[in-house]
Amino acid sequence: MNKEQFIGVLTSGGDASGMNAAIRAVTRSAIFNGFRVKGIYRGYEGLINGEVRELTTEDVSSIIQRGGTILKTARSPRFTTPEGRRQAWETIRQEEIGALVIIGGDGSLRGARIFAEEYDLPCIGLPGTIDNDLCGTDVTIGYDTALNTIVECVDKIRDTATSHDRIFFVEVMGRDAGFLAQYSAIASGAEAAIIPEDRTDVDQLEHFIGRGIRKTKNSSIVIVSESPKDGGAMHYAERVCKEYPEYEVRVTILGHLQRGGAPSASDRILSSRLGVASVTALLEGQRNVMIGIRNGETVYVPFIEAIRRDKPLDKRLVEILDELSI
Amino acid sequence: MNKEQFIGVLTSGGDASGMNAAIRAVTRSAIFNGFRVKGIYRGYEGLINGEVRELTTEDVSSIIQRGGTILKTARSPRFTTPEGRRQAWETIRQEEIGALVIIGGDGSLRGARIFAEEYDLPCIGLPGTIDNDLCGTDVTIGYDTALNTIVECVDKIRDTATSHDRIFFVEVMGRDAGFLAQYSAIASGAEAAIIPEDRTDVDQLEHFIGRGIRKTKNSSIVIVSESPKDGGAMHYAERVCKEYPEYEVRVTILGHLQRGGAPSASDRILSSRLGVASVTALLEGQRNVMIGIRNGETVYVPFIEAIRRDKPLDKRLVEILDELSI
Amino acid sequence: MNKEQFIGVLTSGGDASGMNAAIRAVTRSAIFNGFRVKGIYRGYEGLINGEVRELTTEDVSSIIQRGGTILKTARSPRFTTPEGRRQAWETIRQEEIGALVIIGGDGSLRGARIFAEEYDLPCIGLPGTIDNDLCGTDVTIGYDTALNTIVECVDKIRDTATSHDRIFFVEVMGRDAGFLAQYSAIASGAEAAIIPEDRTDVDQLEHFIGRGIRKTKNSSIVIVSESPKDGGAMHYAERVCKEYPEYEVRVTILGHLQRGGAPSASDRILSSRLGVASVTALLEGQRNVMIGIRNGETVYVPFIEAIRRDKPLDKRLVEILDELSI
Amino acid sequence: MNKEQFIGVLTSGGDASGMNAAIRAVTRSAIFNGFRVKGIYRGYEGLINGEVRELTTEDVSSIIQRGGTILKTARSPRFTTPEGRRQAWETIRQEEIGALVIIGGDGSLRGARIFAEEYDLPCIGLPGTIDNDLCGTDVTIGYDTALNTIVECVDKIRDTATSHDRIFFVEVMGRDAGFLAQYSAIASGAEAAIIPEDRTDVDQLEHFIGRGIRKTKNSSIVIVSESPKDGGAMHYAERVCKEYPEYEVRVTILGHLQRGGAPSASDRILSSRLGVASVTALLEGQRNVMIGIRNGETVYVPFIEAIRRDKPLDKRLVEILDELSI
Repeated sequence: MNKEQFIGVLTSGGDASGMNAAIRAVTRSAIFNGFRVKGIYRGYEGLINGEVRELTTEDVSSIIQRGGTILKTARSPRFTTPEGRRQAWETIRQEEIGALVIIGGDGSLRGARIFAEEYDLPCIGLPGTIDNDLCGTDVTIGYDTALNTIVECVDKIRDTATSHDRIFFVEVMGRDAGFLAQYSAIASGAEAAIIPEDRTDVDQLEHFIGRGIRKTKNSSIVIVSESPKDGGAMHYAERVCKEYPEYEVRVTILGHLQRGGAPSASDRILSSRLGVASVTALLEGQRNVMIGIRNGETVYVPFIEAIRRDKPLDKRLVEILDELSI
Repeated sequence: MNKEQFIGVLTSGGDASGMNAAIRAVTRSAIFNGFRVKGIYRGYEGLINGEVRELTTEDVSSIIQRGGTILKTARSPRFTTPEGRRQAWETIRQEEIGALVIIGGDGSLRGARIFAEEYDLPCIGLPGTIDNDLCGTDVTIGYDTALNTIVECVDKIRDTATSHDRIFFVEVMGRDAGFLAQYSAIASGAEAAIIPEDRTDVDQLEHFIGRGIRKTKNSSIVIVSESPKDGGAMHYAERVCKEYPEYEVRVTILGHLQRGGAPSASDRILSSRLGVASVTALLEGQRNVMIGIRNGETVYVPFIEAIRRDKPLDKRLVEILDELSI
Repeated sequence: MNKEQFIGVLTSGGDASGMNAAIRAVTRSAIFNGFRVKGIYRGYEGLINGEVRELTTEDVSSIIQRGGTILKTARSPRFTTPEGRRQAWETIRQEEIGALVIIGGDGSLRGARIFAEEYDLPCIGLPGTIDNDLCGTDVTIGYDTALNTIVECVDKIRDTATSHDRIFFVEVMGRDAGFLAQYSAIASGAEAAIIPEDRTDVDQLEHFIGRGIRKTKNSSIVIVSESPKDGGAMHYAERVCKEYPEYEVRVTILGHLQRGGAPSASDRILSSRLGVASVTALLEGQRNVMIGIRNGETVYVPFIEAIRRDKPLDKRLVEILDELSI
Repeated sequence: MNKEQFIGVLTSGGDASGMNAAIRAVTRSAIFNGFRVKGIYRGYEGLINGEVRELTTEDVSSIIQRGGTILKTARSPRFTTPEGRRQAWETIRQEEIGALVIIGGDGSLRGARIFAEEYDLPCIGLPGTIDNDLCGTDVTIGYDTALNTIVECVDKIRDTATSHDRIFFVEVMGRDAGFLAQYSAIASGAEAAIIPEDRTDVDQLEHFIGRGIRKTKNSSIVIVSESPKDGGAMHYAERVCKEYPEYEVRVTILGHLQRGGAPSASDRILSSRLGVASVTALLEGQRNVMIGIRNGETVYVPFIEAIRRDKPLDKRLVEILDELSI
């Protein structure tokens, strides 16, 4: 791309705290390096509809600490169709956009991959999802903040968890990945985590529950990953109520509060690094890669790698939970 | 009572943040005034079982900022029986307890009322419940903290609430009282509150929803008071899903996290005042009253008044929500 | 005023968290009642310079949770001159402003009082200051939030305050009023407060310090109100270092972080009530009053009363600190 | 060591949030692996004095979320003398301690190194310091929490930083290392950081200040690392006041509040991993090493390496601040 053209930036998919810090970094780094920037509103849907506005240094002032995204996000079924992408390309041309930075999760990167194959446009992805389920990067934007939010909530529940025959089920996000559930269970000192990678049947649950109660004589807290398949925390609560009527069961469903809130320091630094790196990547002629962080270094990950969806949990951290919840 | 005897203190019923600050204030004020103090663990159940330990100034050091209660709470079905209360009286005598301070909600004060009628023991109640549903006092211990907790959670949901056809239902506590729901709706800028005092049928809900969407083109947030009768937020979510399939609906159930967390400044000051006032009341020869705050002054409220359970919401604050959610 | 004219709203003086909630309430309540609203930027300075823009319902959307003020504030030495106020009046006329709502502290209300005497314009003041030093109202906008912020900070200091020969001085705001220092000392369980109403000499300090250390063998925390006169916490730290070299002394100066942050639930409800009440007051033909809250009711306070500056601390709360820090 | 002996654990030096999570992990992992554990109170001083108590699984229950350290810390000038260490060894023998886990910063590890050379005792260090200045590990316990605390404080200051001729100096900890200052400046969107590695003279400061003001017309925020040498934030504030009287200058000194507060999720996971790894290390026969985390893996770092004190800042993150504060 040449510097007469604009760098376009958009956020897509579910909100993740830190997206604004990434938008700020892309914008300021681009301007610092002699480019101009256009913000595309409401993700691919806004790209199709031409919802585009130039971003200045001032426009991204005082947003680093804000949850959500000033560019808003939306789902775009139309962008999955060739006709939708054609209209998006029309916007790209009319707005003189020479490269695109997409901040989002695996659905967003899938879209970017197809678009970049069909049209001649350098696309750079930034991993923006609280689920931490993108391969090729140690962490994703929003994950650390969501983890902190969950842990603060569980801390409050623990304050009240004093009677010995109570089980608190706390449902957290994560889609098909157990990062949020497993790691928040370690960090909050929960008795167990029920994760998609290792769906627990009711006998195992009894094992957890029994262990928790024998040990502390206090309540047990079980973190449950949401799951479209088996119904999440409510499902487990109902089963325990039916099969172990001697327990009192309480359910908290955290829901979308996990997506919001001011980003953590770590998420802001990550977002800032990745945003700056996206401009560097364009200057280096990179295209159609997601920028990840591996072992403290920025790396370029082909889209096809990033969206593989088999990112493993750290086995040792699974074991640690067993060891520490004795 | 004479100063050879102890002042007993216990917490009972659901946890409320600030109970520890109240325990600290009762203990230190009693010691300051020449008494000694015994803490009774696990509420009336511990009183029956003789779970009693002397409390010193140091024992209540660095607890003012802690959620939960160092004395723990429990329900005590046994205390509702004459035999249970007889055993409790046995403990009182053996432990040389000359007066009792009970920190809890309306069930706890009911118990205190009966006990004080049957046995010759000065009992002082302190209003400790996040629900704010005790009459004779403007606020109760834990209410301000719970309100802040809810509002912080809704703030995070609002960060992500950008698409225009979404409704977020957030279920909060309050039992039969709508204080938490109504006031948190005002403070969080929610579109509507569904409260026990004024259960909304589905047509009204349509009115709320329609209004929210027409106005902001953003998501609507509706605070729903828990309700054993009609199922709370899940119930409303299901109805909206069925009757208005064009909306995407999301549910958050805050549950017990509303009971925990460090108490707010206001709850700590309230708890400190009430704790000190309970000792003053005993010095003045008061018995069988709850201490409340009315218009900034401490007042003595007969138990029978305190538990009337028809404490009204401030009508003007109901109207304000309508006016400000335009 | 008639409904062809606008209601003007401005914030003035030091920021207080909750000002945005008040701006939102004034704007929406005015629109709800058939008025239109103009926001004046940067306080009286912006009124002189004509920095004015109409505010719609959407303009005040999603600001209830934000610290600071979207209208910004500034000091205006020019407004203290007749010529400055004449220019301000010029703006009022050109912008067709029929009434003015001023959100600020005692300097701001002083300005409003003079302006309203010189020119025929209904002015309504809302008490916006973290110092809580305005008479005629139980609380001011921003005070509860600042108190919570201070208390959260002191909680963190207490976590580390374990060695027995350390004194932590924490300097808080409050100008000539000790509300923040005295009440945060109670709420944080500090050993002592040094307040402007009762400046402590070094002998009293020794009394505090000695008491704290004898009691807990832990560190002592002393809250010091800022004071232009005697130098605040640094001054006390230096004196203790010199006269009691056996103590290790540490100083925290909280500074402007006390003005910011998301407003507490209580401040948002207060701001919402006062904002709505300001429009009601104008509809009732009120002018040149500050709206306060007394015993849960909104009251109209003549400007001259509001700025008297001799608002007393609650004596009982001073005594409580002595009793509870044993 | 054999399993008849105890594993001793102590915390030493300045508090760091997460130390309790580490104590819990050492204790539970040791018990899980068949050892028994003794807690040593008040660091090396308590080791000398014999302040030792066995720790059970229950003793470390519900401490993972607490700031400070249940074992308390202290400085121990006596431990720097051969006689002091001899007395410490006496305690080790009497208490049947077969290995020692030391959680602390570089002074603590220095002490451990000498002690382990003089006496035949396996010592394992865990990096516990908010300053992040230990070599051989990417992060230290307490650093992430302190960073988040600073950033939350600066966010609040930013809310109020609206007038264009103001400079806020915020002093943070870090001793001789600029990690906290530099990284919190990036994460909070500050205009500049003044760090020990690169002490800024007044001309550079003018450059920062001028740049900040030209750009945003808002206030500038400068993070200043504490420095015994040149006086920290107060020093810079005074110089700017004198040399640039046109600026209004405000100072915040965060002080010890940076050491406290509930640990972040990341610090809890780190502490849990390191605590478990310390027991694994002892099982493997390791001695006289600090356990660090490098690129996500636990590593053993000889004490002499860990305390080298020339851990470099990440240069790219220094550049990022320049690029993003335009």
